Order: sequence, then C-alpha cells, then structure tokens
Amino acid sequence: MINKLITKIQETNAPIVVGLDPMMKFVPEHIQKAAFAEYGETLEGAAEAIWQYNKGIVDAVYDLIPAVKPQIAMYEQFGIPGLVAFKKTVDYCKEKGLVVIGDIKRGDIGSTSEAYAVGHLGKVTVGSKSYYGFDEDFVTVNPYLGSDGINPFIKVCKEENKGIIVLVKTSNPSSGEFQDRLIDGRPLYEWMGERVAQWGADCMPETGKYSNVGAVVGATYPEQGKILRKLMPNTFILVPGYGAQGGKGADLVHFFNEDGLGAIINSSRGIIAAYQQEKYAKFGSEGYADASRAAVEDMIQDIAQALENR
Amino acid sequence: MINKLITKIQETNAPIVVGLDPMMKFVPEHIQKAAFAEYGETLEGAAEAIWQYNKGIVDAVYDLIPAVKPQIAMYEQFGIPGLVAFKKTVDYCKEKGLVVIGDIKRGDIGSTSEAYAVGHLGKVTVGSKSYYGFDEDFVTVNPYLGSDGINPFIKVCKEENKGIIVLVKTSNPSSGEFQDRLIDGRPLYEWMGERVAQWGADCMPETGKYSNVGAVVGATYPEQGKILRKLMPNTFILVPGYGAQGGKGADLVHFFNEDGLGAIINSSRGIIAAYQQEKYAKFGSEGYADASRAAVEDMIQDIAQALENR
Repeated sequence: MINKLITKIQETNAPIVVGLDPMMKFVPEHIQKAAFAEYGETLEGAAEAIWQYNKGIVDAVYDLIPAVKPQIAMYEQFGIPGLVAFKKTVDYCKEKGLVVIGDIKRGDIGSTSEAYAVGHLGKVTVGSKSYYGFDEDFVTVNPYLGSDGINPFIKVCKEENKGIIVLVKTSNPSSGEFQDRLIDGRPLYEWMGERVAQWGADCMPETGKYSNVGAVVGATYPEQGKILRKLMPNTFILVPGYGAQGGKGADLVHFFNEDGLGAIINSSRGIIAAYQQEKYAKFGSEGYADASRAAVEDMIQDIAQALENR
Repeated sequence: MINKLITKIQETNAPIVVGLDPMMKFVPEHIQKAAFAEYGETLEGAAEAIWQYNKGIVDAVYDLIPAVKPQIAMYEQFGIPGLVAFKKTVDYCKEKGLVVIGDIKRGDIGSTSEAYAVGHLGKVTVGSKSYYGFDEDFVTVNPYLGSDGINPFIKVCKEENKGIIVLVKTSNPSSGEFQDRLIDGRPLYEWMGERVAQWGADCMPETGKYSNVGAVVGATYPEQGKILRKLMPNTFILVPGYGAQGGKGADLVHFFNEDGLGAIINSSRGIIAAYQQEKYAKFGSEGYADASRAAVEDMIQDIAQALENR
C-alpha cells in the first residue's frame, strides 16, 4: 500500500493529505439546512450533513491529491449514524482513487488489537464467509502498549498489503509530557522512532525503499523531525500540524528524504474550512468546496517551494 | 459515577467487572446457528450472535456484579452492525442497573479528544438539540499524547458525572517496552501514575474519597501494583489480567486500599467462555450462561478469600 501512496504522490506531485475532520461548525448552513429538512435535527441529520459536506470537498479536490485522512472521532461523536457516514466517506474516497488513512489511533493487545486490525484493514470471518468492516488503506495506531499491540496489525498488513502509521511525536503542545522524557539520555520519542523502524523492517513491500509501517511526527516539532528522519530512513512520516496548528512549509523540509519522498503533510481545517478564512472568504459558504480546492493548490505550492529552496 | 460504582460494589460485595469481549469462538453453536438462520453468515448475523450471547450472560450474572466492561474492538471488527450490537449491549446493561465501562482506549488531542468524550460519555449538539452517542458510564483512555488528550475527557466527565480510566501499566507481556523505561530513575508507569493522580484531583465527586479518574494496572504486575496503589491513593484501579492472563486472587490484594476499596478486578474469557473450561464443562454449551454465573461466584469467593487472608 505504501507503494500505491508513493505512486499517487508522484502523479499528483503533492505530498499532502487532506484531513476530513468534519466538525459541524465547518459545515455550511445550506448543507445543514438541507440535511435537517430531510432527517430533522437528529444524529442521522448530522451524519447526512457531514457526509454531503465531505462529498463536496472530495469532488472538488480528488484530482489534486493522493490521499485523505478522515478522523473517526468526528464521526463517532454522532454514534452509529456518524460511523455510517465515516464508512460512506471511506468508500467514496476509494472509489475516487484516493488512498484512505483512517485516523483512528487505536491500540490494544493480542486478540483485541487483532480485532481492530481486521475491522479496519482486513476481513473478519463469519461462519464460512469473510467481510471487510471499514476497509481503510492505512490506520494510525497508538504504541503505548508495546509490540503486543503492534504485531497483530503488522500481521494483517502483510496479508492485505495495507499499512499502519504509529504515533511517535505528536503535534500537540503537551506531547512532551511523556514523549520528551529522557530515557538513558534520549527522549522517549527517539526510542519509539527506533522501534517503529524495527517494526517497519518486518513489513516491507516486495519492492521499494519504504515500509508499510509509517510514523506520525508533528509539523510543530521540526527539530525533532530532523532527528527522527535520520533514525527512520525507510519510514514514511505522516506530518500533522500544518496550517491551523502553526506548522509552515519551511518547517517541513527536514521531514523529507533526499529523494523528495518520505513524508506526507496533513492539513485538515486549513483545507476543509478554508472558506471561513479571510484569504478564501470570496468563495462564500456556497463555494466552500472551491475554497478548499484553492487552499489545496496553495498548500501544494507552499510545500513545493519549500522543498525547492532547501 | 465513581460513587455509584462504589455503592454497587458494596451492595454486591464483589469488586469485579465482567469483560464482555464476545469473540465468535466463544459463542455457542446454537446461538450462531439461530443468528445465521435469521440473517445469514453476514456481519448482521455475527452481530446478532454476539448480542444474544451477551444477553444470556448478562441475564445470568447481573445480580451478582456491579459492572461490565464491553471491549469495543470485539464489536468494531464487525463494522457498523457490530457497533450496533455494542450499543445494544451498553443500553441493556444499563437497564439492568450495571455500571458500564466502555473499554475503548481512545486518545487524541483537543477537539478530537472532545469528540470522543462527547460521543462516548456526553451529548453531542445537533442544531438546537443534543444527543447521547454511545453513553457509557466510564471509558478507558490512552495517555500517550499527554494532558491535551485527557483534559477534554475530564471536562465532559464533570458535566455529565461520568469517569475515565487511564492506561498506566497494562497487563500484557510487552507492556514494559515503554512503560518500564526509567526516567530520572523511575519507570514511566510511575510518572504516569502520578499524573493520573493529578488529573484525578481535578475530577473529584462532591463527596467521597475516590476520583472519577481511574487507572488501569494489570493483575500480572502485582509488585508494580503495590507501588502504584500508594502513588495514587484516591484513584480506583481497574485490574485486567485475572484468570486467563495469569493473575491470581492472591496477587490482587495489594491493588486494594485498607478500606477494602480502590480496585475492581476484570475477568473476560474466564467468565464469558467458562463453559469451555474443564472446570465448568458440565454445563455444556447450552448452559453457557449458567457456567458464567458459576465462574462469577467462584471469582467473587477467590477475591474475598484473598482479601481476608491479607
């Protein structure tokens, strides 16, 4: 799956991923009104609103980008109807040829981790048949429980040619509370990065340099990104925190390898709620999807320029 | 919510929680057959099977126990129909008066953590209305991302009088890979325990000794449990790993405070798949629920005895 992602990045010349994190405050009023007219102000109404909102954005940007990253929490908050909208979004993005990174941050042990892995990446057995549950291409995974939590995912990734992306150094201000603590003179995130590289060595595709096990390292920590880039040479890094969280194009160059690959930069609200920014206000809320397209084009240019100037 | 749990523990004299982790290999054949006859060998069929299986167990044991802990991964693997069965299980257990601990191990940051919190513990806003999504009483939370991930849960816990249980030292063999690493001479799990005690101080109920923020510490690590018990005097400890994972009654006494409270011991397959053990084989698969009741009675006695003998 990592090779499909790399091919898509090369085709689009855009090492970016659009985070589909549809908070209701981002959804334009006309979409909310139409959804509530059909389903009422219910969980089903909210789910319809976020689905239609997503669909508009995906239709407007899918030809520019290699991948999307729906954040499952933003769907799960609306209970079962919200998760139905998540599944519709995953399926629709795959129909459009996009690589789908489920931002689910699951993590458990043994048979429980295996259940998450089969539910999100693989097939679950029912009697003599088997079925895909959510069927993302990659999912994010939390490693606090160690290898017992990661290995069941790797097993399913091998069977299904899919991938995981492991939290190493997250983009939030308090990520240092535990991740930066020194262990034998080195911060926890470095130990985690080394471990991710080892897990990744066990999950290489048949050809190519990069593993199906990636890492999350926040754009807001460029110095740490530089170190982790070297510690994990064969690891693709998913970089959240661009835009709204404060990361800039110039901060991002060290997340990439010399081959111009090895990183994919996420932007969520910076793209999907672009119409709410002054810069894209001219599109208005009716033109929210066109605003998202313009924001994607600007982001691609920002990153390309930063990579050229490095 | 912690006070409700304590009252239930005192009423039943049973500091235990039954883990509702319905793997298909535990579900008796007659239940699978009936479900597949109605829905086919489909995700819906699997969901019906695990729901009927759960219902049988809950009906058999609800008067003996204070709480259940459904493990959402075991439902999520069956996609949307599986999550419908999860929700039915949560609702049914609450109808039966049980405290429901959603073992969801979620954890993210800021508005995303808030979305998980409102989806599982609180109410989500839709236009002028608001709705509960999954509506558990407690949920388990992964703390690798620091306070940015925990505080949104605490906010919702305060609003709704609910609780969270934070992973500190997990029961699995590889939990030491990161959790045991020494930071300034003390293992990470101790630092985490201290932090949980601080988060807990911010989430005390109006009366009583114990916080609405609890901790997970595995039964398989009794020595660590002893230390963490002292570090977090006002924290309820959820203790997985009893039975199938190797923890014994005698290992558990140090997880309790002198008041006989402060811990709740989980058993999952040891209870729900008791009929598959030699000890309870006489019940047969048709009598699986009665086998679960017998196993609950034995577990209560084992723990009571261990506490008496300490």
